[in-house]
Amino acid sequence: MFAKTSITHSTSGTSSKYLDLSSVNQHVVKMEYAVRGALPIRAEKIQSQLRSDPSAFDFKKVVFCNIGNPQQLEQKPLTFLRQVSSLVEYPELLKEHNLNATKMLFAPDSIQRAVDTLSFVGGSVGAYSGSTGILKIRENVAKFIEKRDGFPSSADGIQLTNGASGAVERVLELLISDPSVGVMIPIPQYPLYTASLARFGARAVQYYLNEGSDWGMDVSDLYRIVEKARSEGTDVKALVVINPGNPTGGVLTKENMRDIVQFCEKEKIVLLADEVYQSNVYYPQEKPFISFKKVACELNSQVEMFSFHSISKGMIGECGRRGGYLEMYNIDEEVRAIMYKMASVSLCANVLGQIAIDIMVNPPKEGDASYEQYNSELDSIYNSLKSRSIRLAENFNKQENMSCNRAEGAMYLFPQIMLPPKFLEMCKQEGKSPDQEYSMRMLESTGVCVVPGSGFGQVPGTFHFRCTFLPKEEDFDGFISTFDKFHKGFMNEFRS
Amino acid sequence: MFAKTSITHSTSGTSSKYLDLSSVNQHVVKMEYAVRGALPIRAEKIQSQLRSDPSAFDFKKVVFCNIGNPQQLEQKPLTFLRQVSSLVEYPELLKEHNLNATKMLFAPDSIQRAVDTLSFVGGSVGAYSGSTGILKIRENVAKFIEKRDGFPSSADGIQLTNGASGAVERVLELLISDPSVGVMIPIPQYPLYTASLARFGARAVQYYLNEGSDWGMDVSDLYRIVEKARSEGTDVKALVVINPGNPTGGVLTKENMRDIVQFCEKEKIVLLADEVYQSNVYYPQEKPFISFKKVACELNSQVEMFSFHSISKGMIGECGRRGGYLEMYNIDEEVRAIMYKMASVSLCANVLGQIAIDIMVNPPKEGDASYEQYNSELDSIYNSLKSRSIRLAENFNKQENMSCNRAEGAMYLFPQIMLPPKFLEMCKQEGKSPDQEYSMRMLESTGVCVVPGSGFGQVPGTFHFRCTFLPKEEDFDGFISTFDKFHKGFMNEFRS
Repeated sequence: MFAKTSITHSTSGTSSKYLDLSSVNQHVVKMEYAVRGALPIRAEKIQSQLRSDPSAFDFKKVVFCNIGNPQQLEQKPLTFLRQVSSLVEYPELLKEHNLNATKMLFAPDSIQRAVDTLSFVGGSVGAYSGSTGILKIRENVAKFIEKRDGFPSSADGIQLTNGASGAVERVLELLISDPSVGVMIPIPQYPLYTASLARFGARAVQYYLNEGSDWGMDVSDLYRIVEKARSEGTDVKALVVINPGNPTGGVLTKENMRDIVQFCEKEKIVLLADEVYQSNVYYPQEKPFISFKKVACELNSQVEMFSFHSISKGMIGECGRRGGYLEMYNIDEEVRAIMYKMASVSLCANVLGQIAIDIMVNPPKEGDASYEQYNSELDSIYNSLKSRSIRLAENFNKQENMSCNRAEGAMYLFPQIMLPPKFLEMCKQEGKSPDQEYSMRMLESTGVCVVPGSGFGQVPGTFHFRCTFLPKEEDFDGFISTFDKFHKGFMNEFRS
Repeated sequence: MFAKTSITHSTSGTSSKYLDLSSVNQHVVKMEYAVRGALPIRAEKIQSQLRSDPSAFDFKKVVFCNIGNPQQLEQKPLTFLRQVSSLVEYPELLKEHNLNATKMLFAPDSIQRAVDTLSFVGGSVGAYSGSTGILKIRENVAKFIEKRDGFPSSADGIQLTNGASGAVERVLELLISDPSVGVMIPIPQYPLYTASLARFGARAVQYYLNEGSDWGMDVSDLYRIVEKARSEGTDVKALVVINPGNPTGGVLTKENMRDIVQFCEKEKIVLLADEVYQSNVYYPQEKPFISFKKVACELNSQVEMFSFHSISKGMIGECGRRGGYLEMYNIDEEVRAIMYKMASVSLCANVLGQIAIDIMVNPPKEGDASYEQYNSELDSIYNSLKSRSIRLAENFNKQENMSCNRAEGAMYLFPQIMLPPKFLEMCKQEGKSPDQEYSMRMLESTGVCVVPGSGFGQVPGTFHFRCTFLPKEEDFDGFISTFDKFHKGFMNEFRS
């Protein structure tokens, strides 16, 4: 069928190619991203082995607890969001001659919303939007923020992006002006931050979250850390806070947040507030979500801040759609113009992701046909997430040598394992990372894929893993008992 | 309604903020992107003025000819693509109890395709896909390339991206290892390239396309240019070719392409083949599209190459969906692993864009219910684009002091204007760029927004603008006569 070609691909480090590992950008060579690192790559191989030979392992399927990807684990999408998306994709459905059939399939407010959406989108979801996103949607985001916080927000300060990842990457690229720049990041942290700092060639200035106090922060530490970093020649320019925390699940107290804002203002440090889990808050009386924007406004603070939100998390969980936004607070006009230009080079965020943002910030209202269904879908996902988080944490806490904070927020537990000395000794001799080795053994014997704590950072000498609580409720018994069995076997194998 | 806040935003260069123009990344400060630069920003302002006061200008609406955004100018989307997208958005439509109503609205092969798509997507378009895209879609892309070229292609070598822009940016970031790196780019070029080179801190090594020979290339020039650049300390690492050309509309001859491949192989330069306009070829007998992959395979070349394609152009024109792909040819295995890691940090390209790629590379087949409609929609867009390109070029060529090559491909004309000496003198005295000033005057008096040639690069002392031929056929008379009037007035004003 094909003409012959003698192209071969080298499979070892002895490349005969002119573009090789040594000649490409070393920043991206060094970059690490554990959420999609060695464990999930092995997990995908196991999954495809199971497809061709279902008895190849002691388990029937791989359960991906390495990534907050709810719909991969069969979380149902929100009906209203999908109805509107479906209608705007194919506007013929809204034409007079089709409307009778369409009304049999779609709620009346979905139909009306699709008509309105198409009008402010300019007629087609297939056209590029403005560089920073559709104006009407940015206005709706601003209204949502105003309602949430009780302080003004403006469409001018909002950019719609390809997921919150796209927003974070844009801001870090803006800030990193040379290799002496440092960005303060929590440990443990979401590895997008360390990966992006490696990518743009900046320094990670670490501060630790306190596992013993629900992953809270000690702000007096921050002053000490920034002073030390600066004395070593690091131009500390920004501080990342992830609240609710990833991977920790912790929710910051308002007192903590005030201290952070004042620290940033005083030290002239830009605050990056990653608030993508703002709806995933499971003890709202004790530990509510409060935005950094609100805290800054209440303090009348001159802090300079970017904050981030997303449709991938919360109860929406529309990860594959890549929708996110950032808000700029007290950012210089000329810097905003640069942010606009950065957005324009990639043309725009995908329009269907923008439309999903619009639905998140402007859901059906009381009296609308979809109002009750929308809220009951949200509630049912919320309640189930909370109960799964509790069950999983209880189970981890029951295990020998494990302890786990409850998830106050987000989608993850980050249990600590006191690994047996015999196992640590073996890892040392074999040159293996202990938490990675533990996690790999868990994967090989249970099919459950988690991410080793080293992928997020942890206090040296402690070991953790991050595990989502997203598997389906009906799969939870199996999931928990299979983990039980693995961990008991592991502990017995390495008991001294 | 709101608590008071005293935050103010500086509006001048005298910022009181700690993050200001001098402290951000100077690479992004320097980056320029004319397609969304001063002209379109002014055009958007005029558009909103017209909304509040329809008689504010001598024209009723702004026509955006600055960007290849067909659906903004009311090009109809392809029915099959939109039906499948609509169905995968809301899989309830595919359930037994809805199927009767669904069949009244959707073609049977759209329904079947949606079912198949959901099964290989893993059930929901709301889940992250694998980092480089859904395997089945990458396999379909490989089959499309094999059929197009007659040479093997493999899913392993394909990455699905957020538009071709996302793919180009990833490859340039990979290649640019330090500030001495140079990338050869055509002049005129699509400004994504110069913007990205500024962004990643590399040198643009320019080579000129020959306006007098249908924007062809003189490959002997390339040897001279690379030798000179290297002697000046530039590490020339890659060569960009845009074929069919943007903004030129030129299509390269096979002879030209062979010479380019051999040049790159000989000089150990990575070839970046931007082939997003491969379906926009208007004289396929004389000047067919041939892929660089095919030329390289026929030559059995050891050239190392990345090539790019997109759903934003062609007859599909789904720009807002941000779907694209890249293919790696003869790229080192370890470098591919880095490309995989780069893809993984941003998680994945949006899934609906991936699905549109799948439809582009695997359209309805003969015998399918949608086959005839799909092809007649494609043909009608194609024929209309071709006839509009001819009319517009004829009109430009009729004007005093203008000359314009026909569009052999792509979506643009790039006419040259011999600007009157009196006008050039005035621009010089006022410190204005002549082609930008000409284009701005055109915008202010006609509402037609084009991009000045300086945004793409041009032979010094020559002046051009880029104009899409995308306005609707029925608007074309008005569009042409309004331009006529403007240009005559302009020439009379500046006649010596």
